[in-house]
Amino acid sequence: MLLAKSNDVHGCQDDSPREKCGIFAIHEHPDAARVTHMGLFALQHRGQESAGIVAGDNRNVTHYKGMGLVADVFNKDIIARLKGNNAVGHVRYSTTGTSNITNAQPFLAHHAGVYYAFAHNGNLTNTVELHEKLEDRGAIFQSTMDTETIIHLMTPHLKNGLEKALVAAVADLQGAYSIVMISAGRIVAIRDPYGFKPLCLGKLDNSFVFASETCAFDLVGAKYIRDVEPGEIIIAQDGMMKSIKPFVSERTAFCMFELVYFARPDSHIFERNVYGCRKRMGQELAREYIPTVDFVMPFPDSGNYAAIGFAQESKIPFEMGMIRNHYIGRTFIQPTQAKRDLSVRVKLNPVRELIEGKSVLIVEDSIVRGTTSRNRVRALREVGVKAVHMAVSCPRTCFPCPYGIDFSSKGELLAAQKETEPDIADFIGLDSVHYLSLEGMVRATGIPMEKFCLACFNGDYPIKPPEKMAKLLFEQESLLEE
Amino acid sequence: MLLAKSNDVHGCQDDSPREKCGIFAIHEHPDAARVTHMGLFALQHRGQESAGIVAGDNRNVTHYKGMGLVADVFNKDIIARLKGNNAVGHVRYSTTGTSNITNAQPFLAHHAGVYYAFAHNGNLTNTVELHEKLEDRGAIFQSTMDTETIIHLMTPHLKNGLEKALVAAVADLQGAYSIVMISAGRIVAIRDPYGFKPLCLGKLDNSFVFASETCAFDLVGAKYIRDVEPGEIIIAQDGMMKSIKPFVSERTAFCMFELVYFARPDSHIFERNVYGCRKRMGQELAREYIPTVDFVMPFPDSGNYAAIGFAQESKIPFEMGMIRNHYIGRTFIQPTQAKRDLSVRVKLNPVRELIEGKSVLIVEDSIVRGTTSRNRVRALREVGVKAVHMAVSCPRTCFPCPYGIDFSSKGELLAAQKETEPDIADFIGLDSVHYLSLEGMVRATGIPMEKFCLACFNGDYPIKPPEKMAKLLFEQESLLEE
Amino acid sequence: MLLAKSNDVHGCQDDSPREKCGIFAIHEHPDAARVTHMGLFALQHRGQESAGIVAGDNRNVTHYKGMGLVADVFNKDIIARLKGNNAVGHVRYSTTGTSNITNAQPFLAHHAGVYYAFAHNGNLTNTVELHEKLEDRGAIFQSTMDTETIIHLMTPHLKNGLEKALVAAVADLQGAYSIVMISAGRIVAIRDPYGFKPLCLGKLDNSFVFASETCAFDLVGAKYIRDVEPGEIIIAQDGMMKSIKPFVSERTAFCMFELVYFARPDSHIFERNVYGCRKRMGQELAREYIPTVDFVMPFPDSGNYAAIGFAQESKIPFEMGMIRNHYIGRTFIQPTQAKRDLSVRVKLNPVRELIEGKSVLIVEDSIVRGTTSRNRVRALREVGVKAVHMAVSCPRTCFPCPYGIDFSSKGELLAAQKETEPDIADFIGLDSVHYLSLEGMVRATGIPMEKFCLACFNGDYPIKPPEKMAKLLFEQESLLEE
Amino acid sequence: MLLAKSNDVHGCQDDSPREKCGIFAIHEHPDAARVTHMGLFALQHRGQESAGIVAGDNRNVTHYKGMGLVADVFNKDIIARLKGNNAVGHVRYSTTGTSNITNAQPFLAHHAGVYYAFAHNGNLTNTVELHEKLEDRGAIFQSTMDTETIIHLMTPHLKNGLEKALVAAVADLQGAYSIVMISAGRIVAIRDPYGFKPLCLGKLDNSFVFASETCAFDLVGAKYIRDVEPGEIIIAQDGMMKSIKPFVSERTAFCMFELVYFARPDSHIFERNVYGCRKRMGQELAREYIPTVDFVMPFPDSGNYAAIGFAQESKIPFEMGMIRNHYIGRTFIQPTQAKRDLSVRVKLNPVRELIEGKSVLIVEDSIVRGTTSRNRVRALREVGVKAVHMAVSCPRTCFPCPYGIDFSSKGELLAAQKETEPDIADFIGLDSVHYLSLEGMVRATGIPMEKFCLACFNGDYPIKPPEKMAKLLFEQESLLEE
Repeated sequence: MLLAKSNDVHGCQDDSPREKCGIFAIHEHPDAARVTHMGLFALQHRGQESAGIVAGDNRNVTHYKGMGLVADVFNKDIIARLKGNNAVGHVRYSTTGTSNITNAQPFLAHHAGVYYAFAHNGNLTNTVELHEKLEDRGAIFQSTMDTETIIHLMTPHLKNGLEKALVAAVADLQGAYSIVMISAGRIVAIRDPYGFKPLCLGKLDNSFVFASETCAFDLVGAKYIRDVEPGEIIIAQDGMMKSIKPFVSERTAFCMFELVYFARPDSHIFERNVYGCRKRMGQELAREYIPTVDFVMPFPDSGNYAAIGFAQESKIPFEMGMIRNHYIGRTFIQPTQAKRDLSVRVKLNPVRELIEGKSVLIVEDSIVRGTTSRNRVRALREVGVKAVHMAVSCPRTCFPCPYGIDFSSKGELLAAQKETEPDIADFIGLDSVHYLSLEGMVRATGIPMEKFCLACFNGDYPIKPPEKMAKLLFEQESLLEE
Repeated sequence: MLLAKSNDVHGCQDDSPREKCGIFAIHEHPDAARVTHMGLFALQHRGQESAGIVAGDNRNVTHYKGMGLVADVFNKDIIARLKGNNAVGHVRYSTTGTSNITNAQPFLAHHAGVYYAFAHNGNLTNTVELHEKLEDRGAIFQSTMDTETIIHLMTPHLKNGLEKALVAAVADLQGAYSIVMISAGRIVAIRDPYGFKPLCLGKLDNSFVFASETCAFDLVGAKYIRDVEPGEIIIAQDGMMKSIKPFVSERTAFCMFELVYFARPDSHIFERNVYGCRKRMGQELAREYIPTVDFVMPFPDSGNYAAIGFAQESKIPFEMGMIRNHYIGRTFIQPTQAKRDLSVRVKLNPVRELIEGKSVLIVEDSIVRGTTSRNRVRALREVGVKAVHMAVSCPRTCFPCPYGIDFSSKGELLAAQKETEPDIADFIGLDSVHYLSLEGMVRATGIPMEKFCLACFNGDYPIKPPEKMAKLLFEQESLLEE
Repeated sequence: MLLAKSNDVHGCQDDSPREKCGIFAIHEHPDAARVTHMGLFALQHRGQESAGIVAGDNRNVTHYKGMGLVADVFNKDIIARLKGNNAVGHVRYSTTGTSNITNAQPFLAHHAGVYYAFAHNGNLTNTVELHEKLEDRGAIFQSTMDTETIIHLMTPHLKNGLEKALVAAVADLQGAYSIVMISAGRIVAIRDPYGFKPLCLGKLDNSFVFASETCAFDLVGAKYIRDVEPGEIIIAQDGMMKSIKPFVSERTAFCMFELVYFARPDSHIFERNVYGCRKRMGQELAREYIPTVDFVMPFPDSGNYAAIGFAQESKIPFEMGMIRNHYIGRTFIQPTQAKRDLSVRVKLNPVRELIEGKSVLIVEDSIVRGTTSRNRVRALREVGVKAVHMAVSCPRTCFPCPYGIDFSSKGELLAAQKETEPDIADFIGLDSVHYLSLEGMVRATGIPMEKFCLACFNGDYPIKPPEKMAKLLFEQESLLEE
Repeated sequence: MLLAKSNDVHGCQDDSPREKCGIFAIHEHPDAARVTHMGLFALQHRGQESAGIVAGDNRNVTHYKGMGLVADVFNKDIIARLKGNNAVGHVRYSTTGTSNITNAQPFLAHHAGVYYAFAHNGNLTNTVELHEKLEDRGAIFQSTMDTETIIHLMTPHLKNGLEKALVAAVADLQGAYSIVMISAGRIVAIRDPYGFKPLCLGKLDNSFVFASETCAFDLVGAKYIRDVEPGEIIIAQDGMMKSIKPFVSERTAFCMFELVYFARPDSHIFERNVYGCRKRMGQELAREYIPTVDFVMPFPDSGNYAAIGFAQESKIPFEMGMIRNHYIGRTFIQPTQAKRDLSVRVKLNPVRELIEGKSVLIVEDSIVRGTTSRNRVRALREVGVKAVHMAVSCPRTCFPCPYGIDFSSKGELLAAQKETEPDIADFIGLDSVHYLSLEGMVRATGIPMEKFCLACFNGDYPIKPPEKMAKLLFEQESLLEE
């Protein structure tokens, strides 16, 4: 159990972690916890800070959560003791400062003899108002998790039945939320009316499954059925599911960054294959910009797919000019006498013979703070590259995200800090940099532009961020140069 | 983090753990967490299941808890990160079935931007009613701990100030509770009007300290001032303390079992030294019963002090006929071929040359289930003892305890299952057994009989146990013979 | 410390592990252990079973070894306590059955007040004879490591000085050995006259460094100078090095499998860049065989470079059709109800949208037992691939290796078990398979054929394997089908 | 695995650890490793630094050792994997500086296809000469353990059979050695001709067992048969034992300190019960010295038995004036602001009410450095004791021990540093101190004086310590006052 530092949690709610997470649930399966554990394995890229599973039947519930990777948190014995044919699981993204077990999900509580556990992906934008309202009622809070807020909203309405209580609670929520819930024989899946975050419905034999991405279905052997729709609440009980859509969804606001960077390339979200989207973004890039280079290469493994697309479109050879060390662990001990920071080199080493004296184009999927890219480019310079250009398969990310992506403030976004592309190239140490156009990116997805949330690229927020949060998000203090 | 099994917690509230615990708190000390950690070391005998510390100042709070011994849960780094000049700590007794981190204390929650953490020793008797009332208000529960209930009772009144909120919350409580609380610069100590459980006030230089027993003061170097009085609430703030006594304490009901068995012999509780009480109980025993034996011996270390008193009064030699192995750890692996259960022998080995052919009197402080005694007596028989008599320094414990001692039900109490002393001697394998009289025991303490809770001995309950609990406590199902 | 199972070590010497390892050494560096630790990080792909470092100065020596990855075995404190400005390090390959700490290297011993520690890569072929000879002298053995044998050979000659003792000991050795040694202020590097295994000399500022591969130099920031030559002994002392070549090297026998599979692509060994060799092997493949497919793909990450070469030469698009999960840990718990083996899927998941209905060519670097490939091909079939062909960038490996590659016996080699390529394709579930020709492979390296050991491909052993070993190596018992 | 610091081991052999250890062996038992593990549990007081077991049959051997307590080193899985119906085990005493896994026992080696493992208690006095002789033969050493030396002495003679080889090796040894050995179906027990250290023979059903003390027989359920005699070699093979006594034992030299302090009170060694001896030492003390005090008390648990004897003889009441905390662990974190050293208090707390204003006599079994006693006496002063006298149940220990007790040098022995008893009382803070006379101590054992080694008391060394060692042992540098 890690040390939990609880700052005065309500005075600085806006500083709370953006929950960038993966969720999984299964209804009526004899091996519910084991399947959920596997599902979380496949969703591990969505969160490496903590992992948790809650399993139960009509009356009893068992739960387990811990800090770290799914493989480290769970073992055979623990899984065996998580009993019941329903289960929900959660992996959470690591953000500094509030990393503690108290904020690990799923959040489990009891009310009137019944258990309720929620796992959530996304970020509410009206938490401050909701807390104020709830504390008037005498509520206490043990965490800074949105899920604790949601169950508080629900309990007063439970006397009218779970369905009505869910509708009443969800009606109060603003922001992004893809949620799975377990309670006494039932699994519930909820996706906000904008559909910011993905949430998929599948079937494993006769059991309904829910997951943030379809790669979890592939691993557990489930079949993808369809997305949980924006604004939909699905209640699975007694082996059957019931869908209700109590809220009108005026428009969708799919998170473009899921396709650009966050989801796994083998997943199918927003009804699109991610690999295909990324490769086409690389192709679009090659239609906009081709520098004179000897070859195209990604920084493994983030830009692989866009780089392949770029190479195919441009007919420039594709190479893998940096080699990844698969064995980097937690204990990298740098010699005290070392003149350079070696933490980049231990992960990725340039192939000197390939790069020396050559002009290369790096294709990257995105640049957030720019510091990692800068270190990698420096490693290429050290082995004698002639010129390094970079093509980025999305536009400049200039605006923070209040819906669950951890661009905490404008001050941390390189593209917001620098006025021109040459300024950015300069910071990173490139000969040139080119960002894909908004149109090119959207075109690559095959989805109409108005269906996306593109706020991080163009500042057009589908839901207005709350005033307090907005102030914080947009402060211009630069954190880039230490 | 251990696996948490939450049964439907409210339907079977009476099955909840009897909290037999140790608590510590310190106000305005630069090294608050470190001192609290030491205090918990001294209170470790009161609970080995889990340990926790919450430290804080006017605004911020940090906390840490874990399963296991104080020495295993904490380390230097963790203690260093528990910042703030106020702290409360807790050790919890291991009871099977509900052993999990969710129920580890102190319980920390937030309300309206302020933190509150409680550490509790004792057991409420009206939890079922309190939960029902609170859930009407929409409350959710994450644990089965009484402390969670108490904070829920307090929050609606916080708008009138902490003191009034405390009084309002405490007014609703029934049962045994010695509590320390930390919140935003304040330490609060509360003892129920009956004073079931001990709670002492001391001073370490200029800092007020509170502890379940004075042995904690000895270790941290604090001076004992006085007991927190039954029904008293002490609020320490800004280096000063304020005492309020909002409730009339009609009578006290000091837990006799603390003096007989539970407290450390070097502690001073209920204004008595425990060693002295136990030795005098041995002396009283020797006035009631002296069998013909070669020598008197305790089973180390439980009966040491009564045995010394008995030997001095009876002039029979005192010996230490069983040797304790100080290095028993968790991993005792019995040979599969072994004909006998070796788990007793690994802890205590008889001194064959001393015991062979001799008649001996074992002086014990108490017998609960009788199975451990039976195994130890068998070990004496194996080395050729001629006769084994036993004198117990308290009367027969025939009645379960609803106030925080883990005699879960009558079915588990040997003395309640057997009609006569010869029946008990027979079960344990003794030649004879004698229990100290109620009068002898009370006389040894020097405290008037009416000041004690003697319910476990005579069934006279100071607070009526609730009906549901009573039914459970008194069921006659025998668990003795497997 | 793992459990060590020592079978009667000398009666079955041939069953001893083939030591496929990585070695590193540094002379006269203030931070010797830290640099060695980093060097081992870069060599981790050469051995994941155990890691060890010995550091020392003229008189004192400290050492540490443990089972597992470099990152798990060492930490800051341990590294800080490994004192002295000379150090040698070792990582060892995991082979089943003899995995224990006793066989972890470096091997440290003392003689006449001086310490000697050896780290070894390769496998001696005359161990049985050497042990017999040494035991006549009364020698005892604590491990099955060749390094223990070598120091026994050396000690009787130490009265004539270290150099003469080294020459005398090395004169008795047969087989493959790249060795680094530390002793009282000196670092020694030895490579056998055939030069089976790589061993490189570099410089980090003024300190001489030695490593199995140059990728270790890149990470520590050292400059590659040249290879330690076949048959050369280099003694570094007082900041200077002395080279002696006491033995005539009639021919070299560079291990081709290092270039094909074992070395890291960013390394430079046998005076060749590994990435370049592998890519050219892919190009040679494309000159020999082009099936009709929609695209070329590797199984990440083994065949990446040959696949890139194949795609460039053949003009067939390159794709990454299987996605690697970077977070697989030790605890993968398969659902008991699962119908398929999911351990392949958890590592590599096919991109369904890319593969469904397509004909694909897998380019692989090598096939040993064939079982992994079979599982991966099955995963492709499950998502609806139309046809799967495979091109392997080396010839069929039909002959076991007595020099340090763990092809334990012919019975474990798929290519030795199957008569024709269609038989192999059948076993793996392919539509067709093609192996690169011996000539094509050698041509891709740019090194004359006679300089290589190609025994695993053509059975032409540069040093005759000893009779006992040969019998074992060539037994035809099939282990392929369980 | 701990960090191993190997100083130049042979130049400073005399600085090597005095091996104060426990050994156990069993022959022909289906559960050999499990029984050995239990035996080590019972011998844990003889060594807490490391523990190890070697188990085997006629051909195969498995072994496991680790740093720490038996309970921490082993677990069920490890024990289950230690196969074979013979086993030897060892626990080793913690001495600072050379605490590392390399020196953990049993020492296992192989020669000519046969395994040999030795576990040793005692200390050789001619190691320097033996090493010189062996290194002339080319021997290498991996540890500083005497057992490694012994096997080197044995191997050249193995061609004449094990029995002759043992006799030849043992003939070269000088000093104290109680040894058990396992090799290919045989268990061998060896005790030096002086019989310095105990070694007992027992039987568990039909299996022969050997142990340092009989308390190990009690725990495993074995029957004590007799001591292995001084100068005896017992070879157990095929379920039978053969005793040879190749050497004339001119005199015995039983280590008196075993009876005074080291052995467990429930053990029977040198044909005496330890508890009885210690109690009689207390009685002898009371015949020599009775101060005017209110009561007698031990420092638990070392002086318990002598204190009981003293109290019975003197008719002065026996009390247990300091209470032991059974839960002290590794992590005791002292508050930085603490004015006193709290490490004494955390282990033993005085019972204030008992001690305040009283005169007390502490009965102690021995005083070595005196610093612990000093701290404990200070704790008594702090609670207001009126006077503290001390009676020690052995004479002043003024001379270092070369045979295996860790009195490293005269400089560390309080009694050797101070001229008179008042000087010693002064150092410790006592009102008076009295040491038992040599005659009184010997009389208490019932064994003739000439059968003991009393060197630590009177400087009369049965075997002359080697010159080098002697110089070190007797240097007068005082380490007492820091």
